[in-house]
Amino acid sequence: MHTTSIGDLIQLVSTKDQKTFLLIIDQDDKLETHHGIIKHSDLIGQPYGDVVSSHLGAEFLVLTPSISSITRTIKRKSQIIFPKDLGLILLRLSIQPGQKVIEAGTGSGALTLTLAQAVGPHGMIYSYDIRADMQELAKQNLELVGMNKRVNLKTRDIGDGFDEQNIPAIFLDIPNPWDYLAQVHNSLENGGFFGALVPTTNQVSTLLEALKQAPFGLLEVVEVMLRNYKTNPARLRPSDRMVAHTGYLIFARGLTQLK
Amino acid sequence: MHTTSIGDLIQLVSTKDQKTFLLIIDQDDKLETHHGIIKHSDLIGQPYGDVVSSHLGAEFLVLTPSISSITRTIKRKSQIIFPKDLGLILLRLSIQPGQKVIEAGTGSGALTLTLAQAVGPHGMIYSYDIRADMQELAKQNLELVGMNKRVNLKTRDIGDGFDEQNIPAIFLDIPNPWDYLAQVHNSLENGGFFGALVPTTNQVSTLLEALKQAPFGLLEVVEVMLRNYKTNPARLRPSDRMVAHTGYLIFARGLTQLK
Amino acid sequence: MHTTSIGDLIQLVSTKDQKTFLLIIDQDDKLETHHGIIKHSDLIGQPYGDVVSSHLGAEFLVLTPSISSITRTIKRKSQIIFPKDLGLILLRLSIQPGQKVIEAGTGSGALTLTLAQAVGPHGMIYSYDIRADMQELAKQNLELVGMNKRVNLKTRDIGDGFDEQNIPAIFLDIPNPWDYLAQVHNSLENGGFFGALVPTTNQVSTLLEALKQAPFGLLEVVEVMLRNYKTNPARLRPSDRMVAHTGYLIFARGLTQLK
Amino acid sequence: MHTTSIGDLIQLVSTKDQKTFLLIIDQDDKLETHHGIIKHSDLIGQPYGDVVSSHLGAEFLVLTPSISSITRTIKRKSQIIFPKDLGLILLRLSIQPGQKVIEAGTGSGALTLTLAQAVGPHGMIYSYDIRADMQELAKQNLELVGMNKRVNLKTRDIGDGFDEQNIPAIFLDIPNPWDYLAQVHNSLENGGFFGALVPTTNQVSTLLEALKQAPFGLLEVVEVMLRNYKTNPARLRPSDRMVAHTGYLIFARGLTQLK
Repeated sequence: MHTTSIGDLIQLVSTKDQKTFLLIIDQDDKLETHHGIIKHSDLIGQPYGDVVSSHLGAEFLVLTPSISSITRTIKRKSQIIFPKDLGLILLRLSIQPGQKVIEAGTGSGALTLTLAQAVGPHGMIYSYDIRADMQELAKQNLELVGMNKRVNLKTRDIGDGFDEQNIPAIFLDIPNPWDYLAQVHNSLENGGFFGALVPTTNQVSTLLEALKQAPFGLLEVVEVMLRNYKTNPARLRPSDRMVAHTGYLIFARGLTQLK
Repeated sequence: MHTTSIGDLIQLVSTKDQKTFLLIIDQDDKLETHHGIIKHSDLIGQPYGDVVSSHLGAEFLVLTPSISSITRTIKRKSQIIFPKDLGLILLRLSIQPGQKVIEAGTGSGALTLTLAQAVGPHGMIYSYDIRADMQELAKQNLELVGMNKRVNLKTRDIGDGFDEQNIPAIFLDIPNPWDYLAQVHNSLENGGFFGALVPTTNQVSTLLEALKQAPFGLLEVVEVMLRNYKTNPARLRPSDRMVAHTGYLIFARGLTQLK
Repeated sequence: MHTTSIGDLIQLVSTKDQKTFLLIIDQDDKLETHHGIIKHSDLIGQPYGDVVSSHLGAEFLVLTPSISSITRTIKRKSQIIFPKDLGLILLRLSIQPGQKVIEAGTGSGALTLTLAQAVGPHGMIYSYDIRADMQELAKQNLELVGMNKRVNLKTRDIGDGFDEQNIPAIFLDIPNPWDYLAQVHNSLENGGFFGALVPTTNQVSTLLEALKQAPFGLLEVVEVMLRNYKTNPARLRPSDRMVAHTGYLIFARGLTQLK
Repeated sequence: MHTTSIGDLIQLVSTKDQKTFLLIIDQDDKLETHHGIIKHSDLIGQPYGDVVSSHLGAEFLVLTPSISSITRTIKRKSQIIFPKDLGLILLRLSIQPGQKVIEAGTGSGALTLTLAQAVGPHGMIYSYDIRADMQELAKQNLELVGMNKRVNLKTRDIGDGFDEQNIPAIFLDIPNPWDYLAQVHNSLENGGFFGALVPTTNQVSTLLEALKQAPFGLLEVVEVMLRNYKTNPARLRPSDRMVAHTGYLIFARGLTQLK
């Protein structure tokens, strides 16, 4: 039986309203929820997949959080990349255990976390952001999930280039990725994977134009839409509302020369 | 400079029409394409991201294939799961390097490959299929990409249960997943991740009904739509046609008891 | 110059926040808005497409409302059919000026209004609803837009059948349309157009099953998704959120016999 | 019983493969199909909604075509506007029986037909196109459906302006609508409805920019996606593929002055 221990990162989900809490189990702490208080000491030694009760009798499922739910739950100061996009980024950049990846900007760290989980303990994410406050937030989020050793946070203007060379995958989540294609190409392994996310069609056009002027090939622009369904089997139907747009994903491969 | 060697799995992409070929470089082999013949010996020692020419002078980009392009290019005898769905499955099941995963059926092996890449050399995929011919095809596809050691293929009726216990994630891509929830629950780690893909709404309803009668929680049904854009920056617009539907994804967590 | 007169149905749109008000100009009335009061007497003789000011100086565009904006603005007691669906219904049922149409239920009258506009002053809509309160609301909405003479509201259980015969188009917006196919067929002109809207996939299946057992042909099931874009030309992008689902539209043609 | 007569526009739909033929019943003509020949004389006096047989015994449903199926079946030399977009155009432009509408260009006439049906015998469509061949094709299509008297086709460069004044609705389906906003405003009734369809995001941006510099308000940009479902009630699911994009619809209202 898989049970909780001090130091575990767990997810508590209210069985009433599905509201979700992320926490690391500590001996002496307590969690205050809208449905009552839960002492951390009551959370030690619980089987995962079981329920615990608050002092008001409200029940909460005890689970390990998925990386998908972690990215939706972390503290944020900026728009995060959504799971629908994160999954495709992992596949299109062919992220593998043990690998090195560069990303900029760090932002609130949703992609950073996802990449860090995907490369595992033998991989390394080099994450650049010019804003120290974003890096501090990402650092907290990474520590929460115990992945800070897999990420090298660099508070730096990427106009000066990246420190690393021959990196197999680089992702830019910044407003003007077209301004840094030389820096990307310089640090990207030849043949490597490049990706970017931008919210507007104007940015897509500008980035495509720049990629066509630079040694990049296999350009792709995609948009992912995710629709949730209500889970009543006798009345199956999509939810009433959905996210209509997060951003456009652009992918390309680094070439040895202009094509 | 990252260059090709004998034994490398590479992707050749025609610069004329983007047609893609997967191959493992061999000393004496040759590739016949619609744009001419390429001798494998000409492919040795090439920088990745560079071009090679066929005997007719047609150019091909030399690249390492992404897992996403591998799944789209492998030989298939059945409908494969698409990258738009594969990415979300990785995230929602929280697949990690070094992990064990059960899947059934194996099918042509698109999910098998994706899971095998994600768990890395220290993980293991237990992949069940009742059809020996599908397992043979998946075996060939896995050997092609050098991941056969990460996958344990089992030609077996899963009605008899899975051999493994305490597996953190199980995925079913079969027509009647509701018939095997007891077997899934028996082999799933408590609190573990369950997922399934089914093409029709009737199947979604039947599976939801069964999940609600069994010790599973946090049910989710989602649908992912992916739209490609043409890459002309001065005339940015989606492609004319798209995949309208592959299947519905259902996710749940294994609980210790009925909720 | 097209100018406003007493009795005109107009739309006032705040230039600040696009909030929209529908009203019929009266000599002595006044409109109270969150941006101040507008006397109806100030609205007489205004050019359409011009602005009027509230007593607080807030500006409002004076316009004739489109049928599309009317349906979004009317008072409602029930979920209304959205313009994205209304437009397709008009086309698929081939609604024409001067035509007769049956609909049930009346609901808040969004489809009723749209049909009434489409058939014009020489057409007639027979609109059935078992609930007197819905019919009263629809009556008020129809009077607001001056279309009450084109609609014959009938507070009636359609299980008893429709009074009319040989109607070229019948639309059902009720929870159980499959229970009334005999009544529909009895009143539908041979070869006529049938349509229905239901929110769940289970209802779609039940209706399709019933249609296949009855003299109907050319079955179609469609779903319409509409995505708005923000109108900043330098930052073109879809709105953040959208309606994910209203309902499934089912269309069929009445046949002379079982096919 | 509604039966066919000489001169009727009818739709024959193969019960085998749903292939559809539009024709006007003539005494002496015959229709050659992939499933055999049907003499027009056999089509006279048939009940609508019944079947007729070809000389090979293949059955065809006899129906009046919907405007929606007409637009999909007419001869075309250019991309036509699809029903999913046509329906919304009718609503957003608030097209009514008896009304006047200007459109440019005429193209193959799908929108022309739809507008002509919507305004009815007392309305009038002024349809401009610089290409005489497109106008000739539209003329044939209009004659086929008997609506040529409702449409005034003008082979003309709209740079010279439209002949009409105070028209309540104008729609542009041309590559550069932004170049003709002065002409549109000049012929549009004050407060009137303007719409346009363009395929690329770059065109949307250019048109929005121009509309913001001109006396137009209430700008809207929308995109409509339509997904068909297979009609097997026991295996309900969307079709495999769908139209991913036709164009972006832009709507605005003509104002009396710059806002």
